[in-house]
Amino acid sequence: MIVRKRPGALGLMLAWKGSVVPHVLPHILLAGLFACAVTWVARHHYLDGIVEYTLLPFTLLGIALSILLSVRNTATYDRWWEARKQWGQMVYEVRSLARASGIYLQPEPRRQLMVCVLAHAHLLRGQLRGEDVRADLPAALSSELADKALAKRNPAEFMLQQAGQLIADELQAGRLDTIAAAALDKHLHALSGVQAASERIAHTPLPFAYTLLAHRTAYIYCYLLPFGLVGAAGWFTPVFTAIVAYTFFGLDRLSEQLEFPFGRDSNDLPLDAICRINEISVAEALGDQAPELLQPVEFQLQ
Amino acid sequence: MIVRKRPGALGLMLAWKGSVVPHVLPHILLAGLFACAVTWVARHHYLDGIVEYTLLPFTLLGIALSILLSVRNTATYDRWWEARKQWGQMVYEVRSLARASGIYLQPEPRRQLMVCVLAHAHLLRGQLRGEDVRADLPAALSSELADKALAKRNPAEFMLQQAGQLIADELQAGRLDTIAAAALDKHLHALSGVQAASERIAHTPLPFAYTLLAHRTAYIYCYLLPFGLVGAAGWFTPVFTAIVAYTFFGLDRLSEQLEFPFGRDSNDLPLDAICRINEISVAEALGDQAPELLQPVEFQLQ
Amino acid sequence: MIVRKRPGALGLMLAWKGSVVPHVLPHILLAGLFACAVTWVARHHYLDGIVEYTLLPFTLLGIALSILLSVRNTATYDRWWEARKQWGQMVYEVRSLARASGIYLQPEPRRQLMVCVLAHAHLLRGQLRGEDVRADLPAALSSELADKALAKRNPAEFMLQQAGQLIADELQAGRLDTIAAAALDKHLHALSGVQAASERIAHTPLPFAYTLLAHRTAYIYCYLLPFGLVGAAGWFTPVFTAIVAYTFFGLDRLSEQLEFPFGRDSNDLPLDAICRINEISVAEALGDQAPELLQPVEFQLQ
Amino acid sequence: MIVRKRPGALGLMLAWKGSVVPHVLPHILLAGLFACAVTWVARHHYLDGIVEYTLLPFTLLGIALSILLSVRNTATYDRWWEARKQWGQMVYEVRSLARASGIYLQPEPRRQLMVCVLAHAHLLRGQLRGEDVRADLPAALSSELADKALAKRNPAEFMLQQAGQLIADELQAGRLDTIAAAALDKHLHALSGVQAASERIAHTPLPFAYTLLAHRTAYIYCYLLPFGLVGAAGWFTPVFTAIVAYTFFGLDRLSEQLEFPFGRDSNDLPLDAICRINEISVAEALGDQAPELLQPVEFQLQ
Amino acid sequence: MIVRKRPGALGLMLAWKGSVVPHVLPHILLAGLFACAVTWVARHHYLDGIVEYTLLPFTLLGIALSILLSVRNTATYDRWWEARKQWGQMVYEVRSLARASGIYLQPEPRRQLMVCVLAHAHLLRGQLRGEDVRADLPAALSSELADKALAKRNPAEFMLQQAGQLIADELQAGRLDTIAAAALDKHLHALSGVQAASERIAHTPLPFAYTLLAHRTAYIYCYLLPFGLVGAAGWFTPVFTAIVAYTFFGLDRLSEQLEFPFGRDSNDLPLDAICRINEISVAEALGDQAPELLQPVEFQLQ
Repeated sequence: MIVRKRPGALGLMLAWKGSVVPHVLPHILLAGLFACAVTWVARHHYLDGIVEYTLLPFTLLGIALSILLSVRNTATYDRWWEARKQWGQMVYEVRSLARASGIYLQPEPRRQLMVCVLAHAHLLRGQLRGEDVRADLPAALSSELADKALAKRNPAEFMLQQAGQLIADELQAGRLDTIAAAALDKHLHALSGVQAASERIAHTPLPFAYTLLAHRTAYIYCYLLPFGLVGAAGWFTPVFTAIVAYTFFGLDRLSEQLEFPFGRDSNDLPLDAICRINEISVAEALGDQAPELLQPVEFQLQ
Repeated sequence: MIVRKRPGALGLMLAWKGSVVPHVLPHILLAGLFACAVTWVARHHYLDGIVEYTLLPFTLLGIALSILLSVRNTATYDRWWEARKQWGQMVYEVRSLARASGIYLQPEPRRQLMVCVLAHAHLLRGQLRGEDVRADLPAALSSELADKALAKRNPAEFMLQQAGQLIADELQAGRLDTIAAAALDKHLHALSGVQAASERIAHTPLPFAYTLLAHRTAYIYCYLLPFGLVGAAGWFTPVFTAIVAYTFFGLDRLSEQLEFPFGRDSNDLPLDAICRINEISVAEALGDQAPELLQPVEFQLQ
Repeated sequence: MIVRKRPGALGLMLAWKGSVVPHVLPHILLAGLFACAVTWVARHHYLDGIVEYTLLPFTLLGIALSILLSVRNTATYDRWWEARKQWGQMVYEVRSLARASGIYLQPEPRRQLMVCVLAHAHLLRGQLRGEDVRADLPAALSSELADKALAKRNPAEFMLQQAGQLIADELQAGRLDTIAAAALDKHLHALSGVQAASERIAHTPLPFAYTLLAHRTAYIYCYLLPFGLVGAAGWFTPVFTAIVAYTFFGLDRLSEQLEFPFGRDSNDLPLDAICRINEISVAEALGDQAPELLQPVEFQLQ
Repeated sequence: MIVRKRPGALGLMLAWKGSVVPHVLPHILLAGLFACAVTWVARHHYLDGIVEYTLLPFTLLGIALSILLSVRNTATYDRWWEARKQWGQMVYEVRSLARASGIYLQPEPRRQLMVCVLAHAHLLRGQLRGEDVRADLPAALSSELADKALAKRNPAEFMLQQAGQLIADELQAGRLDTIAAAALDKHLHALSGVQAASERIAHTPLPFAYTLLAHRTAYIYCYLLPFGLVGAAGWFTPVFTAIVAYTFFGLDRLSEQLEFPFGRDSNDLPLDAICRINEISVAEALGDQAPELLQPVEFQLQ
Repeated sequence: MIVRKRPGALGLMLAWKGSVVPHVLPHILLAGLFACAVTWVARHHYLDGIVEYTLLPFTLLGIALSILLSVRNTATYDRWWEARKQWGQMVYEVRSLARASGIYLQPEPRRQLMVCVLAHAHLLRGQLRGEDVRADLPAALSSELADKALAKRNPAEFMLQQAGQLIADELQAGRLDTIAAAALDKHLHALSGVQAASERIAHTPLPFAYTLLAHRTAYIYCYLLPFGLVGAAGWFTPVFTAIVAYTFFGLDRLSEQLEFPFGRDSNDLPLDAICRINEISVAEALGDQAPELLQPVEFQLQ
């Protein structure tokens, strides 16, 4: 995630980091060059009588294109924001569990429970990003348990099952009554919900037909545009084509980036930083020394 | 559901699998041929004095069309995404039930409960898809119970009632207190909610008048278009008409596909794969050998 | 609700049942005739120098009109879908109550409770539709109780109060503990929520000023249109006017139909069928003979 | 709230009550007169060479205007509908509390509790509307308690605290266990939520900058319009200007009315009628004589 | 937040406080001056043959721009409104906690609990605004506890943990049963949710690529506009350019202000006033002298 104070108007025009420009520049240039060619040919009258220049069909195409891009944009932004909400919910479930476990549990099982929950966050992050998070697991987690978790199909889920086991043990040992167990399990249930929602977003692309239709309409539009513009805009045709291509390809690429918000692209969510926030919350609740917040590096928070 | 890495720009232009093009190609060609005919007739001046060519009425029609298509698109996409969310909720209710049952139940009734819940998922999938899922039911489910369920109007619901009966038995036997029973039943209630929502989506089409109005406006639009275009676009008329027809018919068909997301079309939800995820979760929670995740075949996850 | 397999393209063009065309046809014809008159007058040059023909003001009006129609459409569709969701929730609350009552209650009070809940659904349907549902009430409901309910201002609500009384009796008789009573009451609370939401939708029209503004703008638009079109479109003017009128009046009427989704119009919700689904759920849960699902008659499910 | 059967097309064109026309008529006339003046001046060629008439810049402005009006419209409608939902929730919380209190409480404290809750609804209505509701408070409420409530900063909130006190007394007297107390308090919590949401909507205007930007853009638009129209539309200019002004000013005023839905304007919510519904629910639950429903007066339900 | 009676039409045109005009005026003037230069150059025919004037490409650009601005506007408004909802929820959680603690707790621990909760609101406000709120903390909060909180990474969270500790102490002392503890903790959980949501909104900007794309498209648009307008609008070009720039830059700036609603800008949320409302609620619940509501100063509520 890019975190920076809003730069001035000029700074915004020139910002590169976090922009989609690097990704779509080749496509913009190609469309611009194609427009140059069309303009050159048209200026030499090779198209006279073949193409009669008119912009109006493009407003028609524009209707379909705007529906496609706008529905797709809204949908991908909603995914991104829902993902952020889910991880925000994780933050407060962890805090509430730290508080509620202080009400019902003895210090030692409380610490073990919180370690499981911290490990869950790291393991889920690892699963969503396809990364190895062995080194980030809490130091208090026994190496044996960590190995056992990582051998499972779904290590994060195992960690929550482990936390549930811990509550079951306390309950059977009579150190917890059913109501307290149910109250603690409610938070594990919520964390399970965060995990399921994250997996849903990470593993369910938008309907592929949507992506295809939006992408194709945008490209057809931009490559037909020079024929429509050349009559009215002359040598401004490549400029206009490039600008229109910039906005449409930019929107297309932006939607693509927001569709899967758990990666390490510059507009993805800062899962590392959120895991750190959890660690701070737990450490302060248990009276330990809390680590530092993660800081953005070159405006980017991981 | 189509699952594939996003292909390059060219790959996207040529992708066939999962696209709506195969479904609407005949309609596009028909509209294009009609436009050819109109152009030919107009070029021979048979329409002079009858049709005065103007594109402007189409922008008017376009307003109504864009409202219709955009509301319908948003609505069908929301149905598709809600269906996905419901089945994502099933995943986490199953996991939470696996965890919570470990807190409150003995191993044997716990296993029976989880078998009921797995069978529920398969049976619901079968009901939504109109398929026979007898072979997919968990091996641990007694053949007698499976027969009894399949004889019911609503087998999936019977399975949840069965799970409720199991909890009732434990409660009456004094092996469970009321609070624990209520905590376990809450997950069955949530699974019942997933079922009711799935049935709602599967059995409630969009208001038919909506489909009609959107469909008709799109067709009238595309078949009037050549008369409007021919004056300005000449022999480009069929090309433009075909492209506009592609986008509008494509949107129309896309909405239709997303309206009922539980089938086996290429953009439908991967219910088989989700049932498998449930099986893995339960197996790992019970300490059994977990089966493999389902993999997409030719980019398609069932 | 219209339930039919999607007909082919031609079938869709000609479908009459469930369409809004019958409702708006007179208005379309009137607008078309008016456009004929304007065209005839214009062709005889009686308007020269008075009206200078231009379409552009209509794009301006179109902005306001599209906002009005689109917000109104979205709002009424949301009401329709929310109503469907509420009745879908009723289905699953009834099922969950059938299951949960099996956990906590003896067979006889359980049956009485479910009878109250089934009667509630029918009575609510009767209140929303302004129909007499005396004949549809469950046979197991004592005639005396039915009379008492129907004499109340709000019979459906009385039925829920009755169900609450039943739980209170069991609780005071010591056959139920407070937790189980609270768990059962939670489902009655949810059914009360379904009722309140249904009443809200049925008795709260969209702000009247909205309906007025949308309706008036659509009519003014369609009756000014011929003056704008006649210069460019000649004798195509009535055709275009009629088509534009069809889409705008159609949208207007569609919104009106979806605004109150509980009636017996062709796009209204199938409350009869949902009540039947409840009866099947309860019968199967209690081990009784379940009735048949309701089937659509001439594509229409009541 | 205006409640009337939908009048015919002509009736809709002429309806005055509930329309925004009375509010914006002076502004429409002013814009129309200004357009007359511009047309007169233009017809006498005093503007030649100064203004070159073109409509196209208005389509540009129209983009910004349509975004502003549509976001604002959606937002204010959502507030209105959320307010209605909250008061609908009040209806069902009151009913559920009437039912649940019958399960757990003795008749006398039950009646006192329901009196507090009815008084809460009236007091909240009074606070939202800035009216004196002393006369509407339930007769069973002791005059002393009513005085005490009205002396508080937030009388409605005091009434809920009073209801909580009543539950606390029953709990301490041992006539209620903790679970029942928690179940009853949950409904008070929900009523507190209705109150907080109502206060939020009543006391939080849309961001003022929004209102300003939308209002100003609409006015600039309508006062520049004659310059753009006069070249093409001649003496139709004032007519078109007035119609466009009607739709834009109408939308602007409509948003303003919906922004604060708790007043006594014709499109505001019928809080009196909802309070009466609560009274009927409670009376029927307690076996008292229920009052009549409130009826609309001249189509308006207060 | 700006709180004022809606001024008349003229007052709205001239309002300065709370408007975005002061922020974007330099940019509007710059765009206007640039348009003057372009017009001057064009009038002297220096651009003839280079630029052929046409407005149509701008309608194309307008599609992309309207999608960008409208999605961004909706998203930022939703953030602002969600933030307001969260703080509205805080209000009612505090009230419900005041009521529920009266049911379960003795006067002294109840008072301590409410002091923690009031301090939590102030500390959260301080954290979100980056201000020192030491002086605003409740007088009843021990100076020692305040110091300890302010030394933490997350003082507000510490305060909730403190409140949890208090409940734990009561529970261990046997003055509270598990159910009451769980009921009280539910409110702390909800307050924790308000905090996490506020932190999420305050620390998660919209995807930076979004801001960039919207900003750049708006600027490119406004600086290309004079070339398109000059042919048709002559010396009206700077006027139109300035107006279009006003609406687009205004929308851009408005979105920026709503993106982070917790600051002290004129459209930000009145956190001070909400904290005061909490203080009044608690004081009235505890029977103390309640402070005054905060009043807006020069229309602005802090």
